[in-house]
Amino acid sequence: MTKPVAIDLRSDTVTRPDEKMSAAMAAAEVGDDVLDHDPTMRALEERVAGLLGTDAALWVPSGTMGNLIALSLHLQRGDRFLAPRGAHVLDHELGTAAWLAGGMPQALEWNAGPGRPTADLVRSLRGRSTRYDALHTTLLCLENTHNSAGGSVVPPHEHAQLAAAARDGGLRVHLDGARIWNAAVALEVPPAALTVGVDTVQACLSKGLGAPVGSVVAGTAEFVTEARRMRKMLGGGVRQGGVLAAAGLVALDRIDSLATDHENARLLADGLAERGWDVTTPQTNIVLAAVPDTGRTLERLRRAGVLAVPMNGQVRFVTHRDVGRDDIEDALRRLGKPS
Amino acid sequence: MTKPVAIDLRSDTVTRPDEKMSAAMAAAEVGDDVLDHDPTMRALEERVAGLLGTDAALWVPSGTMGNLIALSLHLQRGDRFLAPRGAHVLDHELGTAAWLAGGMPQALEWNAGPGRPTADLVRSLRGRSTRYDALHTTLLCLENTHNSAGGSVVPPHEHAQLAAAARDGGLRVHLDGARIWNAAVALEVPPAALTVGVDTVQACLSKGLGAPVGSVVAGTAEFVTEARRMRKMLGGGVRQGGVLAAAGLVALDRIDSLATDHENARLLADGLAERGWDVTTPQTNIVLAAVPDTGRTLERLRRAGVLAVPMNGQVRFVTHRDVGRDDIEDALRRLGKPS
Amino acid sequence: MTKPVAIDLRSDTVTRPDEKMSAAMAAAEVGDDVLDHDPTMRALEERVAGLLGTDAALWVPSGTMGNLIALSLHLQRGDRFLAPRGAHVLDHELGTAAWLAGGMPQALEWNAGPGRPTADLVRSLRGRSTRYDALHTTLLCLENTHNSAGGSVVPPHEHAQLAAAARDGGLRVHLDGARIWNAAVALEVPPAALTVGVDTVQACLSKGLGAPVGSVVAGTAEFVTEARRMRKMLGGGVRQGGVLAAAGLVALDRIDSLATDHENARLLADGLAERGWDVTTPQTNIVLAAVPDTGRTLERLRRAGVLAVPMNGQVRFVTHRDVGRDDIEDALRRLGKPS
Amino acid sequence: MTKPVAIDLRSDTVTRPDEKMSAAMAAAEVGDDVLDHDPTMRALEERVAGLLGTDAALWVPSGTMGNLIALSLHLQRGDRFLAPRGAHVLDHELGTAAWLAGGMPQALEWNAGPGRPTADLVRSLRGRSTRYDALHTTLLCLENTHNSAGGSVVPPHEHAQLAAAARDGGLRVHLDGARIWNAAVALEVPPAALTVGVDTVQACLSKGLGAPVGSVVAGTAEFVTEARRMRKMLGGGVRQGGVLAAAGLVALDRIDSLATDHENARLLADGLAERGWDVTTPQTNIVLAAVPDTGRTLERLRRAGVLAVPMNGQVRFVTHRDVGRDDIEDALRRLGKPS
Repeated sequence: MTKPVAIDLRSDTVTRPDEKMSAAMAAAEVGDDVLDHDPTMRALEERVAGLLGTDAALWVPSGTMGNLIALSLHLQRGDRFLAPRGAHVLDHELGTAAWLAGGMPQALEWNAGPGRPTADLVRSLRGRSTRYDALHTTLLCLENTHNSAGGSVVPPHEHAQLAAAARDGGLRVHLDGARIWNAAVALEVPPAALTVGVDTVQACLSKGLGAPVGSVVAGTAEFVTEARRMRKMLGGGVRQGGVLAAAGLVALDRIDSLATDHENARLLADGLAERGWDVTTPQTNIVLAAVPDTGRTLERLRRAGVLAVPMNGQVRFVTHRDVGRDDIEDALRRLGKPS
Repeated sequence: MTKPVAIDLRSDTVTRPDEKMSAAMAAAEVGDDVLDHDPTMRALEERVAGLLGTDAALWVPSGTMGNLIALSLHLQRGDRFLAPRGAHVLDHELGTAAWLAGGMPQALEWNAGPGRPTADLVRSLRGRSTRYDALHTTLLCLENTHNSAGGSVVPPHEHAQLAAAARDGGLRVHLDGARIWNAAVALEVPPAALTVGVDTVQACLSKGLGAPVGSVVAGTAEFVTEARRMRKMLGGGVRQGGVLAAAGLVALDRIDSLATDHENARLLADGLAERGWDVTTPQTNIVLAAVPDTGRTLERLRRAGVLAVPMNGQVRFVTHRDVGRDDIEDALRRLGKPS
Repeated sequence: MTKPVAIDLRSDTVTRPDEKMSAAMAAAEVGDDVLDHDPTMRALEERVAGLLGTDAALWVPSGTMGNLIALSLHLQRGDRFLAPRGAHVLDHELGTAAWLAGGMPQALEWNAGPGRPTADLVRSLRGRSTRYDALHTTLLCLENTHNSAGGSVVPPHEHAQLAAAARDGGLRVHLDGARIWNAAVALEVPPAALTVGVDTVQACLSKGLGAPVGSVVAGTAEFVTEARRMRKMLGGGVRQGGVLAAAGLVALDRIDSLATDHENARLLADGLAERGWDVTTPQTNIVLAAVPDTGRTLERLRRAGVLAVPMNGQVRFVTHRDVGRDDIEDALRRLGKPS
Repeated sequence: MTKPVAIDLRSDTVTRPDEKMSAAMAAAEVGDDVLDHDPTMRALEERVAGLLGTDAALWVPSGTMGNLIALSLHLQRGDRFLAPRGAHVLDHELGTAAWLAGGMPQALEWNAGPGRPTADLVRSLRGRSTRYDALHTTLLCLENTHNSAGGSVVPPHEHAQLAAAARDGGLRVHLDGARIWNAAVALEVPPAALTVGVDTVQACLSKGLGAPVGSVVAGTAEFVTEARRMRKMLGGGVRQGGVLAAAGLVALDRIDSLATDHENARLLADGLAERGWDVTTPQTNIVLAAVPDTGRTLERLRRAGVLAVPMNGQVRFVTHRDVGRDDIEDALRRLGKPS
């Protein structure tokens, strides 16, 4: 008897291209994107800009690069930026916001809910001293959905208040929208409703949407011109990127299907709770479980054939298009009967 | 009638060299410190190393440069470092810890008292993931006395516990001891009792001790060799620095006299309290007052002939060797009668 | 009558995946390379390491990123590195060798031939002063073939002498082998014969070999571990990169076919010379032409249906697998009859 | 019999404050320059701005910091800057122009004479490509006198042509005028005649003029505001800097006396030539001697009681106010009789 395949809930980044996506990649019209702007790249970038409500957009190899480019262009040497505690730019990008983009972070408490600071908190920190030797605070970096808070969403009115609090104080606003598609689906609003008042936004094609590689960073046309140059500096300019952009275009057709992942996350959370786990109530496709010893729990899960990852002292499960309702039910069975 | 001179309580950096110090500067034996190591510089550096209990020390033009050199040498690109909320390296050095030293800061709450995190908090954050893409946390940066917490002191046993918590987790420890002399005097211990377990320490000669210019950064001989190179890079290498080192040597004779500044701070705090101010109880030479509107209060003080500065939404008064007991009493009179 | 399609000789980066390559991409076995190391990526990296004679290799999105990672890991803040005048790392990577890798470049004259410095020149510059305030020279960066010198090759014995001159002086050696495959074919040696004595090498899959995206940076296993971390920092870590690695594996089967590009370059150069152009004798797939006004000449070429680019005041033509012998003959016809 | 004191010709940085200068330092009116702008600092900065023909000036602890601040403010990430081969910013500032100011250097040949490129050479390199992925060349950095070329001077008309060639191409111009006073005296022009067309200039008080510590960086008022902030970042902001500024003011009274150093350099060069040395004809206070083995020669000199330093494979002697005509004659005697 062969060992059953593990059910992989480590991340929505583990999805693999299906046949339709592979076919699109193979058939993509391509050009040299560094020299000419690859036509499929161009089509993807225009479509994403439309979805996000920005003037223009630029494909990048990863969400990390998208955030890095935006922060690098927004921040002057040593500027302070604000971001919710646990934000990806603070904890999961290897300190590049500091050493490479040159920013001095200030974490914001979650005083409005998981992953969510209040606009009042932003207002209290946005002040700009007139002293020549004072730190300048110039950027608010939001994250929606907020990964380390368990995929929590910031609704449009709250987002707009945060952005306005920043802008009224002269700060720019960047949105890390790696999973903005999940937020939009969960809130039943178009993605552009979640970018009101932002200067720039980064959105991933390679997470729930299932493209193998790629993200997009978007903003004004002027920003994208500068971003293209910075992308080249970082080594993110590619040649016949159309093969990847074609996958991205297919991925964008699948935004609505994220609702299934969200249902599956709720199913998983309910099942875990029934088995005595201390879990968050998922708002999107992420379930966090508080456990006494993450290492031990992850190992126990692995032996049972369920893969997850540690996240800030908790265990994180992520649902995605390569695990169906059946797989979730199977995973729960592997973890024993409800108590 | 001439307007009375303002009583300057903005900072202990406003002190001016007295006759004895000026005479020492004029008589200093000097050399070219870049080429040869100026003899008075050498004497100063050896004396400070002795006081701080380190192998070696290096003169630098400012405490900011001393901290910057230490952080630059301790941190690799993007490494996380821990520092108490409000630390000088976080809030008052223009973000250089990030853009120049390359560090990603994590602020520590004051869960052991003003300016003081617990060793348990350090332990909870010091972990080093084995994942190749995880942030490395490599440094704890302490501050004693802690300026923005109102000159609060960390006693030796608590300091030792913090340093041990860091070192046991593989972290290095830097101490921003800009006012370590005040801490030592307040605690009635030698300064070296406050550097147990640290890798490097920075101490200012230009604050309460009254030298016109200069700080020292200290550590192992190997560290100081590297620090000398970094100082040259930053443009902090000077030629006949002995003229300044001579002032530093005189300043070091005056450590004990800081006790007077501490008495005067208590006198000021008591007087302010009697006049209805909401003030901290000073542990050293700093008094913080909570006021509804710092700008308005500072202006009112200025008109009355008393100078102070804003500090994180409070008003900060600092006593120093150029204001005596009489001046404090005079300042209090200028602020009206006790209520 | 439709306008004939332009013959594109701007760069060998303009090649498009053919059917075989597209099929391989569509059929690639993939995984999440950030979490698990994608299996096709792994196969590609092992194969390239074998070809280049290194312990290990790492896929990167571009040659620029490969060079940047290598320089970042070799250089300490402010270290001087040597590179032949006109090297890609000096002139065509937007200054990242300086601002990002932290290196201070020193250009080497071509005193051994086009693109080729002598080992004696390296020896004369490699010295390391014992003064604490002296610049450190720590790296030699070679380029083979040398793009801006017209695709010139450095033969194995000369390469070995250069590398030895560097290593004997304590310098590391990085080889920008963006077109190392062309050099190996032209010299009729295995690629590994051109990496003797180097610490690291970067090689492109997206130029003459025709992969749509990707390069490889190779060295010791320890280097590759560090490089993977730096790649993540720069945002070059991708998820199901196997789709691109599959194209790279097909590309590597085509190294020998570069000989055709080299023949075509000679054909082009001869034809241009017959038409009165002042051209270099190509050693690989690049032809440089000296012209009085590059802008005017490029425009005239474009109107005639032949695309080229400016390169340091000359006009550069590059042959590649998407232009055959017929296309070259056609291009020459478009430029008029031999004089 | 005591060993005679060595005659120190290593650098004009070895001069020590005389009684008049020490007295001025002791009597200086001072303030806290970070908080208030020290009054003697202000007087010095205004006087230097007047001499250099700029709107404003800022005291800095060293010429290296002055150059670093100027380059940091002029250069964007990765910008190329032009500087004569051997310039101090290229060879003697530990690579900070690259890793810290973010610039990519391009050395200019000395095709107009020692240390002097032609305006035509600047014109040929100043072009700015319209391609988004091209390096930007944005700054020309001149040096007058040019140290490693043997203290050579650039006369006003030649300087003006170089500056104009840069500005006409959209480049800014920074002048490293560490020894601008020597150039002005040698050319018998006011210093401001040598700053025509520059944006910023750095000038040292601690070399031939004899102040113990300090330089000045000068430009527009707006530049100086930014420079003050950058100085604070680098740790170069000092408190009662007036003690040093007072020395600087005395130093500025002594510009004319540099003519004596120049005479002494000619005397030294003539004497060395008579003794068979292969020396440059000094234009200011520096003499370079070509020798087969610098280490051996310097050691021989040291034993004879004459100190010099190596400079790019030559031996450098510098005259200054602490060595008189008698000392030069004595030094020559120590080196033997004319041949």
